[in-house]
Amino acid sequence: MEQVKFWDIKSEIRVVGVDDGPFEPRMKGDVLLVGAVFRGGHWLDGVLRTYVTIDGSDATQRIIEMINESKHKGQLRVIMVDGITFAGFNVVDIQEIFKQTSLPVIAVSRKRPRMTQVKKALKNLPDWQRRWKMLRSAGKIYKVKSRSCVKSVYMQIAGIGRPDAEQVVKLTSTRSLIPEPLRVAHLIATGIVRGESAGTV
Amino acid sequence: MEQVKFWDIKSEIRVVGVDDGPFEPRMKGDVLLVGAVFRGGHWLDGVLRTYVTIDGSDATQRIIEMINESKHKGQLRVIMVDGITFAGFNVVDIQEIFKQTSLPVIAVSRKRPRMTQVKKALKNLPDWQRRWKMLRSAGKIYKVKSRSCVKSVYMQIAGIGRPDAEQVVKLTSTRSLIPEPLRVAHLIATGIVRGESAGTV
Repeated sequence: MEQVKFWDIKSEIRVVGVDDGPFEPRMKGDVLLVGAVFRGGHWLDGVLRTYVTIDGSDATQRIIEMINESKHKGQLRVIMVDGITFAGFNVVDIQEIFKQTSLPVIAVSRKRPRMTQVKKALKNLPDWQRRWKMLRSAGKIYKVKSRSCVKSVYMQIAGIGRPDAEQVVKLTSTRSLIPEPLRVAHLIATGIVRGESAGTV
Repeated sequence: MEQVKFWDIKSEIRVVGVDDGPFEPRMKGDVLLVGAVFRGGHWLDGVLRTYVTIDGSDATQRIIEMINESKHKGQLRVIMVDGITFAGFNVVDIQEIFKQTSLPVIAVSRKRPRMTQVKKALKNLPDWQRRWKMLRSAGKIYKVKSRSCVKSVYMQIAGIGRPDAEQVVKLTSTRSLIPEPLRVAHLIATGIVRGESAGTV
């Protein structure tokens, strides 16, 4: 499969972390999606936002547009997403994001995604086979020791080799187990929606 | 005047930086106000938000509520605000914020506030004498060499001595001339309103 080759991963590599805001069960409408543009694991360089439909299927397209239209696009090297479903079951096609942005994608999860449980839940939604196919296309789930030697996070990757992806996850996990671009995108998205951010790992 | 005494300013001192989002000229309504809770000049610990009325007079009260209702309140040591007017001419009373939160306030500006120009503009607003009185009560404008030895920022202070305030400004200006809590609050507020953040110093 096609991949971006990293000759050298710089400590100030530009990474955008994407996470969604909270919403109430049975709510309809749009949910805030935030992109936190980071230099490595240390400096916030910019903030992007878009909206995605609850249980809709526009997350992939909205993320592609948000990245491609950003003035940071030229500097960005990697896109990180918090898992591969946003706003309920609005599934993200990480292969498609890679194809349309030419930037490798790393989906990071705190817990190992439980595919059989997800499949069961998906079946309540229209168009579930297409969503399931997208989820499956995110590929193999890898365990990464991001920061401590005890605890792990999980990643799925598109357009990047496993060793390079691991190195980017480790390099950017400066503050917690979760890479800083994702930790901060989460704080911003929950803070803006709720008035006060909710804790992360 | 009453002041908070700092025996020792720790490098991880919790500071919240408050800045407003952009709005179009002649717009009416509310403007987003963001609080970025930082540990010193390095780590974002949380995000707060509220709304203030364009050219209204609720900014002081909204900031007091946002801080006092936050779960971070117990850890916070200093409030920084980006200048003393938000959402147009919604003037902030930094003495009142200090009184109602018991936290010292530092108002930081990139440029020296031009009081005669501000006074002229204020006169177009209802209730201008009250706003002018609040602006004047922010007190003396001090020049601070925050980071480089060449360029300066300006501060006005409430509930804190000049040497302590200078130290907090210097300690938190890790990335640019502007203290990190204010730089990041600005990036978040503009990013969320516009879809992409606008540059700071």
